[in-house]
Amino acid sequence: MMIHAKIWASYGDTVKRVPLGEAVSRKSPESVVFIVAPDGDGNPNVMPAGWSMFTSNDPLMIAVSVGFPRHTHGLLEDADEYVIAFPSRAHKEDVVFCGSNSGADIDKIEASDLTLAEAAVVSTPLLEDAAACFECRSGPSLETGDHTIFAGEVVAAHVSERYDERLKNLGRDWGDGPERFKTLSELLDSKLTPP
Amino acid sequence: MMIHAKIWASYGDTVKRVPLGEAVSRKSPESVVFIVAPDGDGNPNVMPAGWSMFTSNDPLMIAVSVGFPRHTHGLLEDADEYVIAFPSRAHKEDVVFCGSNSGADIDKIEASDLTLAEAAVVSTPLLEDAAACFECRSGPSLETGDHTIFAGEVVAAHVSERYDERLKNLGRDWGDGPERFKTLSELLDSKLTPP
Repeated sequence: MMIHAKIWASYGDTVKRVPLGEAVSRKSPESVVFIVAPDGDGNPNVMPAGWSMFTSNDPLMIAVSVGFPRHTHGLLEDADEYVIAFPSRAHKEDVVFCGSNSGADIDKIEASDLTLAEAAVVSTPLLEDAAACFECRSGPSLETGDHTIFAGEVVAAHVSERYDERLKNLGRDWGDGPERFKTLSELLDSKLTPP
Repeated sequence: MMIHAKIWASYGDTVKRVPLGEAVSRKSPESVVFIVAPDGDGNPNVMPAGWSMFTSNDPLMIAVSVGFPRHTHGLLEDADEYVIAFPSRAHKEDVVFCGSNSGADIDKIEASDLTLAEAAVVSTPLLEDAAACFECRSGPSLETGDHTIFAGEVVAAHVSERYDERLKNLGRDWGDGPERFKTLSELLDSKLTPP
């Protein structure tokens, strides 16, 4: 089938087939977002998500991928609106805390250090000190394997005047705690070596 | 509607509403992928994409968001399989070249320095020196604004034995050329200051 004239590399010299997880680990560092989603009474819950991307310029849209068992999955199925935030270095502990507890069991915002701020268009609150917050109206969704992609249209955006850099997840080599999350500036000050 | 007891930040002290593009710019640096997609004859075309994410663990799946007018959009609509690759620092010129030319006009692989390598499962080739390559079978897709999200199931994965880091797109402050793309190690050697 391949009729391309390009000379091919001799496979095996420089390219190696590996288990999927080994190739996936080369994604790091990976951006992380907070999903702030309301329940039926409008009470917000916060979940960190490693899988997100912009997905439209006009209108501006963001997509997040959320696993079926997550509490936020049910919230996003029912919500008309939500907020996507870029955590800053003020949020390292909150990313870990909100990622290791479920909104099905506790009020994560009450139990965390997160501070809310009023949004401009939607009823769901912003997160103070997030590098950026995007108010979203729910859009189309798509089941993909064990996750659902939720796409939302951005109707307003905000930035922190204190923190302008978002957190990156450096990967499991850096442990499971807050030391796993750093901004680019913090990385530049480190030696890129896991502790 | 909001009945949450949490104390709210005084809006305006630290949080500022801004035009959407100003908040979006806080996404940087952003990962970039190559989409290697075949035409009906099996000839591959390469497009860099800034919007991608993993979207399932089991099976492993990757999603990419591609604008309607892109040549690759039509290819992915018809293709049964394709390859997603993480460009390495060997690919800076190729990212720029493939991002500023269309496969509708020229054979980008012929015209670039890209070297192909045979895949294990699919007929679409891998890219030598990519930090990682993921062979994908086409899955579900979703229209979102002016882009379509294409989700694919990863059926095999490969890594480069020469290059283990993927490129990041540092954003428009760094210009439109190859200097805009760096690995994390290169960033650590720089001072994070646009040229």
